[in-house]
Amino acid sequence: MSDLKHKILALVKDDLAAIETALEENLNPHLDLVSQIARHILFSGGKRLRPLLMVLSARICDYNGNYDKTFSTIFEYLHAATLLHDDLVDQATLRRGNPVAHSIWGNATAVLVGDFLLARSLSIAAETELPDVIRIVAEITENMSQGEIHQLMKKGSLDLTEKEYMEVIRQKTAVLFQGTCRVSALISGAPKEKETALSDYGFNLGIAFQMVDDLLDYTSNSDILGKEVGADLKEGKLTLPVIYSLKAANTKDRIQMEKIIKNKDFSVNDFKTLIALMKKYGGQKYTEKLAREYVGNAKDALAVFKNSKTKEILLMIADYTLTRNL
Amino acid sequence: MSDLKHKILALVKDDLAAIETALEENLNPHLDLVSQIARHILFSGGKRLRPLLMVLSARICDYNGNYDKTFSTIFEYLHAATLLHDDLVDQATLRRGNPVAHSIWGNATAVLVGDFLLARSLSIAAETELPDVIRIVAEITENMSQGEIHQLMKKGSLDLTEKEYMEVIRQKTAVLFQGTCRVSALISGAPKEKETALSDYGFNLGIAFQMVDDLLDYTSNSDILGKEVGADLKEGKLTLPVIYSLKAANTKDRIQMEKIIKNKDFSVNDFKTLIALMKKYGGQKYTEKLAREYVGNAKDALAVFKNSKTKEILLMIADYTLTRNL
Repeated sequence: MSDLKHKILALVKDDLAAIETALEENLNPHLDLVSQIARHILFSGGKRLRPLLMVLSARICDYNGNYDKTFSTIFEYLHAATLLHDDLVDQATLRRGNPVAHSIWGNATAVLVGDFLLARSLSIAAETELPDVIRIVAEITENMSQGEIHQLMKKGSLDLTEKEYMEVIRQKTAVLFQGTCRVSALISGAPKEKETALSDYGFNLGIAFQMVDDLLDYTSNSDILGKEVGADLKEGKLTLPVIYSLKAANTKDRIQMEKIIKNKDFSVNDFKTLIALMKKYGGQKYTEKLAREYVGNAKDALAVFKNSKTKEILLMIADYTLTRNL
Repeated sequence: MSDLKHKILALVKDDLAAIETALEENLNPHLDLVSQIARHILFSGGKRLRPLLMVLSARICDYNGNYDKTFSTIFEYLHAATLLHDDLVDQATLRRGNPVAHSIWGNATAVLVGDFLLARSLSIAAETELPDVIRIVAEITENMSQGEIHQLMKKGSLDLTEKEYMEVIRQKTAVLFQGTCRVSALISGAPKEKETALSDYGFNLGIAFQMVDDLLDYTSNSDILGKEVGADLKEGKLTLPVIYSLKAANTKDRIQMEKIIKNKDFSVNDFKTLIALMKKYGGQKYTEKLAREYVGNAKDALAVFKNSKTKEILLMIADYTLTRNL
């Protein structure tokens, strides 16, 4: 674990504990099976990054209520719901090193428990009694489902452009990060300027986070990742490191890369060849550079806030996004 | 088509046309594929009963805004979302005589478009700016997913009790009908007494509606039904007519009925034998009698409203529930 991660975890220890309690207390299912499956996806080593961002964003806006931890569950339940559905959509087998829910309980149950978590998330959003908050949460869900559909439509196609990739990660990841931070400004009654700042911080952080996530598929190993390396490609998902390299490559190299990508059963050696070719054309480096720029934008957005311990942590989280497993 | 249906349709013609327009206008997807699939499930001959109940309930509460048609889409989008997910859960093949969405576009897309419609529904609920309305819509979704999960858990089991059946249909159907009518009272600013009355009307109507729906599986034919007759049993779904008959039967007859039910590939003759045995023990008659009682309760609940054309239509809809294809 990196020093930065250690440092952040020490600083937010109490918040994380309170978030964990809130996640337990607000789940509230009528059926044991729902509880069991929801708990499988919720309590299996998630980073709690989204609720944590929500709690810290509320604090930097001087939120003075008692419901920030409760409201932070909105974003973890929503995240868990999409994980349940996405694992099914992607026909994934492992998530954080564990078998995915649909492989244990079947597709049907995974769909329905996902629906339950989605609804639970919106019920808690309704408790804020702020229509803007509820609208944001509903719009996040609309965006995420469309981002996933867009990705699904492009599955296996080698002509996904960088622009389309950016639109997909905006919809499936960045809007959730953005909403998480923005909702905190709203429940705190913060001025528009701070709402915009947090919204920008979350959006840019989300883009960077997804880029790094996509990059890890080409730089990490399965022990760290908790899922198969090269899983994105095996699912027919083209991400920025590959998109950039394919575009930059000469004809001969591009044909070789495309051959490997098209063959879903590529060997470890094929994958190594692909990674070497991507490196030759700078796909990984380009993605890292872009992610670094988005992290820079995220940090810049916080300029409107005066210095504080909370601001420090939000800046550290932005930096951590880049270093997490590169 | 029954006379009553003709009469109702003539009276609500303009409302249905306005609902249809609202369903078109508020769908608002970014992607053609989402639009295509959402339209497949939304515009394939649905009765629009839920939005119609919403519009009529608003009218009987003297609602004087312009958004009743828009808000009524909440319940049709929500209904369509659950149909997409339920068809997948039930591995159905036909819906209203058409191939189901997941058989055309695949499970993954059906899941995600269902999520989109669910989110769309809640976005429109947020536009009411009434936290109670949003909470009701979110709670309906929680209930419906849990009702479906409950049903799924009991799939193929022959020991479902009448009490459990009632709980399942409460969650998966009645809470939506109830919410549809109750939300209208809320957006109209109606007094508590009228809110309760409409809530009771919707709840009782929903229970009766589902009972009749379940009964049709044993009394109708596939042309009228738009899906296979005996489909519930083939999906391992025990409903009231069977539950009641199994409980009332003597050992010999019960064993014969169980044998037919357990064999998912039962023949047309087996199914006829089963229906005859159910008739012998009064399962169909009992279900019809109960449905009639719930319809009676629904109509009684409207007593607080003075006589009006709108009240007449709501009473007729209750009666129609019983006669629709019996």
